[in-house]
Amino acid sequence: MHPARKKLALLRAAMKQKGIDVYIIPGTDPHLGEYIPEHWRIVQWLTGFTGSAATIVITSSFAGLWTDSRYFSQAEQQLEGSGVRLMKISVPPYPSFTDWLVMKMRKDSLIAFDGRLFSVSMFRRLKEKLKSQKIVINTDVDLIGDIWENRPPMPDSVAFEHAIGFSGEDRLQKLARVREEMQRTGTDRCLLASPDDIMWLLNIRANDIAYSPLLMSFAIVGMDQVILFTEESKIPFRLATEFDKTGIVVLAYDEILSVLSSLPARSSILIDPSNTSTTLYYSIPERTVIIEGRTIPSVFKAVRNQTERKNLEEVMLRDGAALSKFLYWLENTIPVNSISEGRASEKLLEFRLQQTNCTGESFPTIMAWNEHSALPHYTPDQRTDTLIGPEGVLLVDSGGQYLDGTTDITRCIALGKPTLQQKKDFTLALKGTIALATIRFPYGTKGYQLDILARRALWQNGLNYGHGTGHGVGSFLNVHEGPQSISPSADGSGNVVLEPGMLLSDEPAIYRVGEYGFRTENLILVSEDLENTYGHFLNFLTMSLCYIDTLLIEKELLDREELNWLNNYQERVYTHISPLLDENEKLWLRKKTLAL
Amino acid sequence: MHPARKKLALLRAAMKQKGIDVYIIPGTDPHLGEYIPEHWRIVQWLTGFTGSAATIVITSSFAGLWTDSRYFSQAEQQLEGSGVRLMKISVPPYPSFTDWLVMKMRKDSLIAFDGRLFSVSMFRRLKEKLKSQKIVINTDVDLIGDIWENRPPMPDSVAFEHAIGFSGEDRLQKLARVREEMQRTGTDRCLLASPDDIMWLLNIRANDIAYSPLLMSFAIVGMDQVILFTEESKIPFRLATEFDKTGIVVLAYDEILSVLSSLPARSSILIDPSNTSTTLYYSIPERTVIIEGRTIPSVFKAVRNQTERKNLEEVMLRDGAALSKFLYWLENTIPVNSISEGRASEKLLEFRLQQTNCTGESFPTIMAWNEHSALPHYTPDQRTDTLIGPEGVLLVDSGGQYLDGTTDITRCIALGKPTLQQKKDFTLALKGTIALATIRFPYGTKGYQLDILARRALWQNGLNYGHGTGHGVGSFLNVHEGPQSISPSADGSGNVVLEPGMLLSDEPAIYRVGEYGFRTENLILVSEDLENTYGHFLNFLTMSLCYIDTLLIEKELLDREELNWLNNYQERVYTHISPLLDENEKLWLRKKTLAL
Repeated sequence: MHPARKKLALLRAAMKQKGIDVYIIPGTDPHLGEYIPEHWRIVQWLTGFTGSAATIVITSSFAGLWTDSRYFSQAEQQLEGSGVRLMKISVPPYPSFTDWLVMKMRKDSLIAFDGRLFSVSMFRRLKEKLKSQKIVINTDVDLIGDIWENRPPMPDSVAFEHAIGFSGEDRLQKLARVREEMQRTGTDRCLLASPDDIMWLLNIRANDIAYSPLLMSFAIVGMDQVILFTEESKIPFRLATEFDKTGIVVLAYDEILSVLSSLPARSSILIDPSNTSTTLYYSIPERTVIIEGRTIPSVFKAVRNQTERKNLEEVMLRDGAALSKFLYWLENTIPVNSISEGRASEKLLEFRLQQTNCTGESFPTIMAWNEHSALPHYTPDQRTDTLIGPEGVLLVDSGGQYLDGTTDITRCIALGKPTLQQKKDFTLALKGTIALATIRFPYGTKGYQLDILARRALWQNGLNYGHGTGHGVGSFLNVHEGPQSISPSADGSGNVVLEPGMLLSDEPAIYRVGEYGFRTENLILVSEDLENTYGHFLNFLTMSLCYIDTLLIEKELLDREELNWLNNYQERVYTHISPLLDENEKLWLRKKTLAL
Repeated sequence: MHPARKKLALLRAAMKQKGIDVYIIPGTDPHLGEYIPEHWRIVQWLTGFTGSAATIVITSSFAGLWTDSRYFSQAEQQLEGSGVRLMKISVPPYPSFTDWLVMKMRKDSLIAFDGRLFSVSMFRRLKEKLKSQKIVINTDVDLIGDIWENRPPMPDSVAFEHAIGFSGEDRLQKLARVREEMQRTGTDRCLLASPDDIMWLLNIRANDIAYSPLLMSFAIVGMDQVILFTEESKIPFRLATEFDKTGIVVLAYDEILSVLSSLPARSSILIDPSNTSTTLYYSIPERTVIIEGRTIPSVFKAVRNQTERKNLEEVMLRDGAALSKFLYWLENTIPVNSISEGRASEKLLEFRLQQTNCTGESFPTIMAWNEHSALPHYTPDQRTDTLIGPEGVLLVDSGGQYLDGTTDITRCIALGKPTLQQKKDFTLALKGTIALATIRFPYGTKGYQLDILARRALWQNGLNYGHGTGHGVGSFLNVHEGPQSISPSADGSGNVVLEPGMLLSDEPAIYRVGEYGFRTENLILVSEDLENTYGHFLNFLTMSLCYIDTLLIEKELLDREELNWLNNYQERVYTHISPLLDENEKLWLRKKTLAL
C-alpha cells in the first residue's frame, strides 16, 4: 500500500473530529517561498510528491494535488496508488483549486488551513471566489503537527557574515537606502517575511535550507531599529556584536507574533501580501495602517551593484570551467566505464566544489538521459537512475552557490550521432535563446513583452514549451529570485520593468515526451545600451560561459546573425575558459568551440 | 487673440460663481467613445484642438490639455496662444492629470465635472488617487451648456436596417445568444452604453456621427424585452414594426435615467465601468445588483461570423482597387498638375465612393507629404495643406465604410528617388509589419505578447514608435473597435485573448520629426492554423490588398522569408486587384508588383 493512504486516513480522522469539510495544504513554509526546510515538507511527507510547487485539497472523499506542467509526469508517477489525484494547473478541464472549491462545496461547509502557510493574497483570492457562497473558513488549524511522527526538527544552522567584498555595500548603507525610501513613502516599518530579503539587507547567510543559503527568520525594519526574529543560538557572538553596533536586535523566531500584535496605532507598516501569511497579517492591530506592496529590499536586491556584477563575471569563469571539466570527463569516461545519471551528478558537484568560493549546488542537478530529458525538472532517484550512453542525448541543468554569486546553466550534449529531428529541435530552441540574448529594448520594457522572442522559432514550427522563459537569480541567494521574470503572463513577475543590473535566465526548451528534451540556458544581465531621441535602450549581456554542442546544431536553420552570435560566443568561451583547463581539456575545448 | 482665451474666461467666471476650484472636461460624449458628434466636441470648441483623445483640467490659474504622443505636434500648434498648456501623457516629467490633481489640490478643494462624460472607471481612479486628501468632488456640473453659443444640435439622422446579407445573423439570433449568456451568468439585464454594441445587436446603423455609422442611443437588454433609448423620430416606421415583432421598445433618449432609477431591487444588471458614465451608474438604485464586466455584445461582435469574413474579403478587393486607382492617378497627375494634400484626399474619397456599397470614409484621411508624414495623425487643413511633389515621400492612411465592412490601410510611396536612410527606415518598419503578419501562435495568446514582433527590427536599430501596433476594427462600424488590440501594455485591450475571427490592424511605424514618417498598415484576421500536442495554433491572414512600393525597400535588409512574403503578397495583390482596373492601370500595377 502507498504510504500516503495511512496518513490520509489519519488526517481525515482529525478533520472529522474537528468538523472540517475541507483541509488545504499549501506546499510551502511560514516564509511562503519555494525553498523550504525538511521540517516543512508536508506535501512530500503526506503524498510522496517531491516537486517544488503544489497545493493539496482534502475532503472526506477526495484528495487532490495541484501542480504545474513542469511536474506532471513526475507527479503521475509519485502519486500512483496514493489515493491523491493529480490536478493539472492551467490545463482545461482541470479547475483551479479555488474553482474546484466553488464547484464542490456545499452551503455551510467548513474550510480550514494552517494560516502560517497561506499568503494574504491567496486567502483573498479564495475569499473572493467563495464570497457568494455561505462558507466558513478557519485560518488557524494545524492538523499535521499531531500526525507527523519523527518530523524533522526546525533547522538550526548558524548565521555567518557575507563579506563586503561579496556584497559590495555594507549593511549600514543598505539600511540607510531602505530607510530613505521608507521616509519618502511615509512608511514607519517594513515587515520582511522572506529570508532572502533579510539575508541581503543584513549581509548574512546561513544553511537552514538545502541549496539556498538562508536563515529561517523574519525581520521588522523600523527607522531606528531592526528586529531580527530567529533563535539567539543561531547568531554567533561576533555577528551579534556587529548587530549591536548597527541597531539590530535579535528576538526569538516566534516573538514575531507578539511584536506585530503590539504595533502602535496610527503607525504604518509595509507588507507584501504575496509573501506574508494570514497568521502574521491578522496579528497586526486594526488601528495600525497596513501599506501593501513589494518589500523595499526585494526591489533593491534584484539590481546588482558594480561589485556584484564584477564578482558574477568571475564566478562565471569558475562555474564554466567546472562544467567544462565535467563534460570532458564524461565524454572520455563513458566509452570505457558506465556512468549513471546519479553518479554523473555527484561528479559534477565534485568539479564545482574544487572551485574557489563554491559552497555547493544552487538546486538539485537535472542530469537527464534521453527520455528523462523530456521531464523539465527530472532528478535521478533510486527508482529512475539510469546509465548514460553510449548513444543518445544528455541534458544537464545545474548551478552552483558561490560566496560571490549563484549560477544556473543548462547544456545538452549528444553522444554518438544525433538524429535529424533532434538537431532541428535543438536548433529551434537555441534560436530562442539567441533571440532573447540579442534583443535591444527601450527602458520600461517588461518581461512579458520579451517572452515571445524565445518561442517564435518553436511556434512557427508548431512547437512550444509549458513553462516561463526566464526567472530572476539571486546573488549567493535563491536561484529563483524575483521580482523580475520573462514569461507570457503579465500577472506578477512578468509585469516588472527590467532594470539595468537585473539578472535573468534565458531558457526556451522543447520536450518530446518519451523521447528527449532540449534547453540551452544562460544567465543574462540587463545592461545599458544607447540613448537617443527614440529612447533609452537596454540590452542583455550573456554571462554564462560554457560551449554549446555544435553536433546538435542544424546550421541551415540559423540565419547569418544567429550564426555570428554562436561563433562569437564559442570563441568567447574558449578565450575565457581555456586558461582554467589542463592541456588535454584545452585541446578538446578548442575543437568544441570551432566556428560553424 | 486665440479664441480659447475668451471662452476660458467665461468658464472661469462660471467656476468662481459656483465655488469650483477645478473643472475637468473629458474629450468625449455620454457614450464615452472616441467617435463623437459635433454637439459634444467641447474640447475642440474650447481650445481649438481637434485630436480625438484629450482631457482638459482648468483652475483659476491653469488650463492643461492631456493628450498622447500621436497628437503632440498637432496640439503644440493648435494650442499656441490659447492659454492652454499641452500636457504629454506618459512622458516624464509630465504627471498624469490625476497625479497633477494630487500634487496641486489644496485641502477642501472642490473638483467638478459633468458626470455624463466621466466613466465609472475614470472616476474610481480619480477617487483612489485623491483618497488621502480631503477633496470634494461634484459629479453633476455642466458649465458648458450655458456658455457655448450656437452649439450644434444633437444629431438627428434616421436609423436604417443593416441587412442580414451584411450581418450574417439576424437580431433574434443575436438576442438569443446574448440572453443565453445572461442566463448562464445570472444576469437579468445588460446596460449597453456604447452605440456600436447596440448597432451590432439590433442590426441597425445610422449617420449621427461622422465616419462611424452610429445612432446615438442607449439600450437595456432584458430577458424578454429590449429598451432602445433614442428619439422616436429617428426610427422609421418599417423598422419600428420590425422592432415591435421582436420585443424591442423605443423610449426617448433621456428616459434612460428614469428607467435605470426604477430597476427592481435584487435584480442584476451588467455594466461595463469603462464605458458607463457616473451619471448612469449612480442612477441605478442601491439595492439593484451591479455586475461589472465587458458587455456581452462587445465580446460577440469582435468575432466575425462566416458571412462577415466572406464580405470582408470582397470589400478588400474594392477598397484595394480604389486605393490603387488613386495612386495610379496621383503618379500620372503630379508631373503635369500640382495637387495638394487636401485635393488628393478628396480624389481618394471619389475613387472609394465609386465602389459598390461604399458610404464614405471610416476616418479623416491622413494624406501627409514629407515632414507632415512624421505626424502620426496629420490631416491637412487650410493652414497646413501643401502641394505634393515633385520629389519626396507621401503617406496615405485611409479607410472606407462599406455596408459590408470597414477598412483601414496605410501605404507610403516615393516620388522621385528616395534617400538611403528613407529606404532603410521604411524597410525596418515593413519588417515589423511582416513579422506580425506571419506569426503562428497558440490559442490563449494576448495582444501584448505579439507587440514586440512589430518593433524588434526598429529596436535593434535604436528606433521605436510611440503608439500601439494594432487596434481592433468593426464591421461597418467603428474603425477603432475593441476589445482586442496589439500593444505593449497589458492593461485593457492588450490583455484580451485573440480569438479566431477577430480583425486587427498591423501598423508599425517610424517617424523622423521634421523629415518624414513611414507606416505600412494592413488589416489582419485571426484564423485557425493547426492543432497538435503542443497546442491549438492560430495565425493571421493579411486581408488588405494594395501593392507595397518597392522603390522604398532596401532589399538587403529583408531575409529570405520576408522577401518571399513580400513577393507572394505583391503577386496576390496583382491577381486580385488587376481584374478591377482598366488596361493602363493594369500595366502599371504589373510593374508595381514585380518580384524583388
